[in-house]
Order: sequence, then structure tokens, then C-alpha cells
Amino acid sequence: MYQIDINSDLGESFGNYRLGYDDEILKHVTSANIACGYHAGDPVVMEKTVEMAVKNGVMVGAHPGLPDLLGFGRRAMAVSTEEVKAYVKYQIGAFWAFAKAKGQKIQHVKPHGALYNMAAVDYNIARAIADAIYEIDKTIIFLALANSEMTRAANDIGLKAANEVFADRAYNKDGTLVARGIKGAMIHDVEQCAKRVVKMVKDKTVICLTGEAINLEPHSICVHGDNPEAVEFVTAIKSALAAEGIHPTALKEIV
Amino acid sequence: MYQIDINSDLGESFGNYRLGYDDEILKHVTSANIACGYHAGDPVVMEKTVEMAVKNGVMVGAHPGLPDLLGFGRRAMAVSTEEVKAYVKYQIGAFWAFAKAKGQKIQHVKPHGALYNMAAVDYNIARAIADAIYEIDKTIIFLALANSEMTRAANDIGLKAANEVFADRAYNKDGTLVARGIKGAMIHDVEQCAKRVVKMVKDKTVICLTGEAINLEPHSICVHGDNPEAVEFVTAIKSALAAEGIHPTALKEIV
Amino acid sequence: MYQIDINSDLGESFGNYRLGYDDEILKHVTSANIACGYHAGDPVVMEKTVEMAVKNGVMVGAHPGLPDLLGFGRRAMAVSTEEVKAYVKYQIGAFWAFAKAKGQKIQHVKPHGALYNMAAVDYNIARAIADAIYEIDKTIIFLALANSEMTRAANDIGLKAANEVFADRAYNKDGTLVARGIKGAMIHDVEQCAKRVVKMVKDKTVICLTGEAINLEPHSICVHGDNPEAVEFVTAIKSALAAEGIHPTALKEIV
Amino acid sequence: MYQIDINSDLGESFGNYRLGYDDEILKHVTSANIACGYHAGDPVVMEKTVEMAVKNGVMVGAHPGLPDLLGFGRRAMAVSTEEVKAYVKYQIGAFWAFAKAKGQKIQHVKPHGALYNMAAVDYNIARAIADAIYEIDKTIIFLALANSEMTRAANDIGLKAANEVFADRAYNKDGTLVARGIKGAMIHDVEQCAKRVVKMVKDKTVICLTGEAINLEPHSICVHGDNPEAVEFVTAIKSALAAEGIHPTALKEIV
Repeated sequence: MYQIDINSDLGESFGNYRLGYDDEILKHVTSANIACGYHAGDPVVMEKTVEMAVKNGVMVGAHPGLPDLLGFGRRAMAVSTEEVKAYVKYQIGAFWAFAKAKGQKIQHVKPHGALYNMAAVDYNIARAIADAIYEIDKTIIFLALANSEMTRAANDIGLKAANEVFADRAYNKDGTLVARGIKGAMIHDVEQCAKRVVKMVKDKTVICLTGEAINLEPHSICVHGDNPEAVEFVTAIKSALAAEGIHPTALKEIV
Repeated sequence: MYQIDINSDLGESFGNYRLGYDDEILKHVTSANIACGYHAGDPVVMEKTVEMAVKNGVMVGAHPGLPDLLGFGRRAMAVSTEEVKAYVKYQIGAFWAFAKAKGQKIQHVKPHGALYNMAAVDYNIARAIADAIYEIDKTIIFLALANSEMTRAANDIGLKAANEVFADRAYNKDGTLVARGIKGAMIHDVEQCAKRVVKMVKDKTVICLTGEAINLEPHSICVHGDNPEAVEFVTAIKSALAAEGIHPTALKEIV
Repeated sequence: MYQIDINSDLGESFGNYRLGYDDEILKHVTSANIACGYHAGDPVVMEKTVEMAVKNGVMVGAHPGLPDLLGFGRRAMAVSTEEVKAYVKYQIGAFWAFAKAKGQKIQHVKPHGALYNMAAVDYNIARAIADAIYEIDKTIIFLALANSEMTRAANDIGLKAANEVFADRAYNKDGTLVARGIKGAMIHDVEQCAKRVVKMVKDKTVICLTGEAINLEPHSICVHGDNPEAVEFVTAIKSALAAEGIHPTALKEIV
Repeated sequence: MYQIDINSDLGESFGNYRLGYDDEILKHVTSANIACGYHAGDPVVMEKTVEMAVKNGVMVGAHPGLPDLLGFGRRAMAVSTEEVKAYVKYQIGAFWAFAKAKGQKIQHVKPHGALYNMAAVDYNIARAIADAIYEIDKTIIFLALANSEMTRAANDIGLKAANEVFADRAYNKDGTLVARGIKGAMIHDVEQCAKRVVKMVKDKTVICLTGEAINLEPHSICVHGDNPEAVEFVTAIKSALAAEGIHPTALKEIV
């Protein structure tokens, strides 16, 4: 039996600023990565987003980022591993409060934006994140880029890692993502994305940019939540999976 | 047998900015109120402060404040009760992460500065704080001004409250603190402060500004940690208590 | 000949967060109040907003707020007059850089949100703002609520003040605005708003909530820019004025 | 006749946090680089620091940094050149307000910390800073590391640049600074530092780490202000210069 989780980055509004189609997306995903106030989100937004997720039966996770609201956590920063570890702990804890108040456990932690990208290729950053999670609660899943330093760091310390895959991003032969600037990095056709996902889940392979089939062990597919097309995108993917008898389940059932 | 806790506001450094004599004060208090990043403190400071407290056998608590680093949380803000509740949850959670990683429980929560002062006289603000604590963990103690709306709100929902008293602040006849601007509001003589504490603990009374003895049920004495005289102050108080055979114990043993 | 300016609060986006219909509104107003990074706005947004205003021939002014991005500057804070003066100076200066780089002068300064409301009724706050403007450049106009402590403070020090009036807010008999919570405080009918504006400009009177006609000396009408109806609103007002042969002109031509 | 300016980074306190020996240092330097609220400093601190500088007859300049108060502007960030230009403009403008209110001109702009280091080696960042200065006021001096991309960018657009040299930092053969991590990068002996300065000013050379004499055209010497030894350091340098009949003068007299 094939199993796959669908995750999305949510709770990214801040104060008077609204962002994302959270109420719509939450009807379709199985795991929500909720911003923790560093790159986006605020306590009131976190409370409401956790509440909405629970109402929709969606599992919740923390989505910690760099302390850069102005840059939405998308700008790499020369932070030390000590800082990363402390920042991630802080945000997981802050998120925990809202989950706990609703009787929920933190299912997973997925780093955001530049922190995710830095940790994907820098073992020490990845390890700092893994250590932060582990020291708080070793049953939390580290949701991370497949074949990255993040999954390696999690494995090294005995923390559960889940492989995140992308329906609309091209892959290199070594299993890493093609950088956004390169031609062909993004796949814009929704149907093609849906077909890729089915192939990833059923065959555990993806055709990389240079044409070869490479192996993947996908646990969760990332779908966006911050544009109007996002709902159409996730619906297409779910339909294609359903046609194969595959129905998404939350990460905790899979890893 | 007389029991009393001694608490201090600690972990108020931020980034490159150092504040407070935490390492000295931690040798003398039984409970530490640790800043949570809103009015002061940052994740790295929180991690180090919790570690230092644990090494000194001091119980730890969260010290949430208003989101006003520029004003050190000392300026009243027209925040809604929904906001207060969410801000306090966020900060308790963030603090929890560092306590949990060191195998510690959150003993108590004490609001900081303007939030403390607002909650002392505004039941709805006090209730929002009490609700935030209760929803996260109903075994946490609400450390609050004796005879205030905070202790009333805690009692109303079945949350444990501890009465905080001040050695160096004058009291009004109704048990509230004399406002700082008023003559005689502050008691500067260390020996006099020490004597008042002994009287509070033994007789459960304090002589108020207008000369009458009023009743108090003190659970914890607040000592400062941000000036060089603080160590002398807490030492004098402990000596005076010790002369009566009274040795401070952590809050959790008292309420 | 009748003269009136139309102003709107613009440049309130922040980082990744978009807010307001600035490009549309700038086609219709004569003065732009541009956020300065405290309650909203950021340097990149300020640069772009000034550029757009200049392209549309709209005069620019600074729109300083309280240091509360999380609350969008809408929450009163117990700031000292020294702080207010310094915060306003800082924001006017920051705004000046973008105006100067485009060869523009700062036409006016209008406080935002809670700062505006506080200054309307508190002479010391109003005076701190007026002093800040005056010390930087005494030719800048203080755009302020008509009949408020702000206009009084400006007059006291010889700073030019412009009376701001509201098309969609009811007035009390003493010329102050009816508080938002009170029934009838907001006027929702666009045509009625347009008629009120014509009457204000031509007759220098407005019918207050209790039915009496009161005197006003309007220099500028405030229109919103953060909702889709804003364009319809300003268009209706301009049409009604045009029907009387009145065409809005920038504040600097009026006061 | 030999000419040299002495500059120091000042005004780095923030809110309740005190940093630096500004009142002492201001008695000895000729140019003050004043923090602008991004990496350090706040409006109240800026106002006071400008006031103190004026009282001591010290010329003032803006000291803009990255938007990272938590990291004191010392952590490199992947900011775009558009962002750098806007951030620098914003901070120069904010600083201008306080200078203007005291009747002062902005003498110079010196980037802080990571922004300085990034601009020293990245022409595009350096150029963005130079452009920001130039667009505001082309008579402002860009105080920058000698032989860096900053001085090159300033020259390219016709902006005046002043060469900053360091008494206590070792130089590479190509005129760049030896990175702090490398052995010998810092010169701790105060007398040796003072001798180096005299040699720099008189001979326009410095002995680099590998022993060769290299050419320098020093306009300004940087002295620290954030540690108790800073006053001793600047006094020693000034005495050594005075022994040669050299008395520091402000930058504007030199470039």
C-alpha cells in the first residue's frame, strides 16, 4: 500500500497583514507547517491557525525560520550553530504552547526558507536543528529535503526524518533540487506535476532534469498556500493520486 | 514553620547587550523569572540562563512581557485580552523549550513590567494571563501581586496563585503598592527592608504608609538583579531571615 | 474660490506583505501620507511609494506612527513626550531621504493611528510632534484633526497646521469626531459622504450627530486606500466637488 | 603638514540597554559614527549622542548597519543591492533629522559591521551604499576601508571617499586587513599601535603581516568606544601624534 503526506506552509499572516489561503488549503492537506513568529506569523495568528488545522483534522508542525521578518526569512544569514539551535528551540516551544492548549502534539518540524536551504547543504546547521528538536522531544519528526544534510543529521542522532519532495521543482541527478535560477527548474504545468507525484509515490523515482530516472523515498509532498492557484494545484495532485487508489495520510502514520 | 520563596527577574540581556548580575543573584534566590524575548532576553540568553539556574538549583519560571523591546516592556499598551492571552502563551511556550531540554518543569509564570501593572488592576487582562497559563498546564503557579486582580483571576479558574511581596515598596491600606511617584513609596534602607520581610513572613503583616498594620499572606519576595546593590540587598534579607531560623524554599514547596 | 486637498495613507506594505491600492489611489489624491517603517512600510516600499507619488504629481508627506508593527500603530502606548519627539524626528528624517533623492520637499507630516488619536486630545503629545517638525524644518505643514490639540500646539509655536476633515465620520457638537463605537459614528453611504464634503468645502459647516450645523475650516479630506471601495469613494467625492467647479489642490497651495 | 582624523562608533545603546563610553570617547575623537537604529541605537539615543558630539565639537556622521539588532549587525545577510541602497538611505535620513535639528550637517557615512565587511569586497554592495549617499547629498564623505571596493565605488561616481585605517589590525600585502581569525591579526600593545599610527600618518606606509612596507593614504583612524581600555588607547595615539606635532582634525578638513 502506498502512503504519502501532503504538507503546506501556513499561518504566515502577521498583525494587520493577511497572507495565504489557509482556510482553503487546510481542507486538502494532511500536515500543516505553521510559522512561529520569526519570519512570519504572530501569536494570534498561530492560535487561529492551530485551531483551524484541528478543525480540519490536519496534523500540526512548527515551521521555524530566521529572525528576519523584513525579508520573510528568505535571506541567508551568517548565524552560528549555537544561534540556530536556540532560535529553533524557541520557535518550537512557542508553537508547542498553542498545540498543547488544543490538546495536540507537535507532529513535525520543518525549517523555513533560507534556514531550510542553508541546512540542506550545511551539515552543522542541519545538525543544530536536529539537536534542537531532539533535546525537546525525540518523537517529533524532522520534515526535510530528501537526500540532504538535514536527513543525514537526523539519522546520525536517531531522530526520525521524513523526506519532503516537490511536485513542481526539477531534480538534479544527485537528488538535490535544481536551483530556481536555472532553466527548467520550475514545472508550471499542473497535470505534469500531478503525474510526477504519482510516479514518485508508486515507483519511488523521478525523472531528473538531465533525463535519468533517480530514486526517491518520498514521505511528504509540499504544496504552496500563498497564491490562488494553490488550491487547484493540490486538488489536481489529490485527484491523480485518488485515481490510483492513493489517499494522503498524515506523516506520523508513515515514518 | 515559616516558608518563603525569593524570586528575581533574570535573563534580561539581549544580543550584544549585557544586563543584570544573573550569575551572582542565582546563588541567592530560590526562583528565577526568566525573560522570554518580548521585553528582553533572546533564545541564546534564555538557554544560558536556564542552564545557570539549574546549576544553582534554582526553580525556573517564565517572565512574559509586552512586545516592546525598545521600552523594555515598561510602557502600558492598549492590547486586547485576546492578544494578551496569545502573547503570554507564546512566551511560556518558548520558555518551556529551554526548560524541557534541561529536564526542568516550568514552576511559575510572572508577568513583567507594564503587563504586571496592567494585570494587577484590570481583571480582564489578569484573566487572559491566567487562562493562558491554565490552558497550557494547570499545575504552573501564577506568581502575582498579593491582593490583586491577578490572584483573583487565578482563584476564579482554579489556577494556583502565589502572593508576591516587596521588601522595598511601601503599601497602601488596601494592600496595593504605593505608586512610585508618591513620597515614601520606595524604602531605601537595606536593614529596614530586611526587618519588614521578617515581619511579613512571621506575622503576616506589614505596616502600611499611613501607619496601620495590614494583613499579607506572602509566598515570595521579589529582589532585583539589575544593579550592583542587588546582591547586598538579597544577602541582608536572607541573613535577617536566617537569624529567625527561616530558610527560603522554592515556590512549589509553598503553594 | 474654494480650495481643498485630498489625502490618503499610503506605502503601508511591509517586506513580503502587500497592503493597499496605492497605484489606484495615487491617481486621485493630491497629498500622500507615506508610512515610515514604524507602524508599517519599509525602506524599499518607501522608495517605491515616493517614486509613484512623484510620477502622479502627488505631494508627499511623512506618516509617522508608534513603534508597533505588530499592532499596526493602532494601540495606544504610554510613551513619554521625549520619546514621541524623537520617534517622530527619526521617521520624518527617514522619509526625507527618499523625498530628497527624488528632488522632493516634505510637504506635510500627519501622525498615524494611535499616535494621531493620542495627540488629538493630549496637548503634550501634540506639542512633542509639532516641536519635532519645527526643529527639522519649520516650513513643513502639520496635517492634523481640525479643532484638536494638534492644531493648537502647531499654532502655539508658529508651525503651519492644516485642518483634516473626514467625509465618513460623524462629528460632535464641539467639532471633535464621534468615537467609532457610538451608533452613527460612521457614514456608509457614499453619496451622503460626497454631499457632506461639498457642504464642508462651500459652507464651511457640517451637520453634527445631534443635528446642529457646526463650523469647520477644512483644508484636507482624508480618504482610505486600503480597501477596494476606496477608489469608488474618492471618485464620488471628486465628482461631487467637480460639479461645483471645485478641483482639489495640494495642501501647500492652501495653507 | 600632516593631517589625520580620529573616528569612533558611538550611540550604540538601545532602549534600556547601555553600551559604550561615549561621553569619554567624545572628548578625544574628531568624527563620530552614530548608529541609526538598525544594528544598534534608537531615536532617543541618537538625539542625545548628536547633542553630546556637538557639545564636544565633534563632527557627526551616520553609521548605518544591517537590519539585525539581535546580531548587532555583525552577521552577513544575503540582502539585494536594492535593499542595501534603501536601508542605507533610510538610516542616513533618520540620522539627518537629529543633525539638522542641532544645526549640523552630515559630515560622513561609514557602514557598520557586516555591511562594512561585505561592501569592502563586493563592488555591487559598495556601489549601492555610494549611490544611496550620492542621491541624498553628494557632499557627504564615504568613510571606508582604504583600498577596498567601497573607495573604488565612491571614486567611480564622483563621491568623496576617506580612507579608514586601523591602529590595532594587521594588514595583508595587498592593503586589505588580515582576517580576525588569523594569528597576528590583532595588535594588542597600545604603544605599538601608537607607533604604527605615527608611521602611517608621516610615512604613509605600514609594515604588513609578512614584513613588507606597504603604502597607505590614511585619512581617518578608527578607535573603539565600547570597552574601558578605549580611552587609554585613543589617548596613547593622540600623545604619540602630538609628540610629532600632529593634531587630529575632522575629516571634512582633509578630503
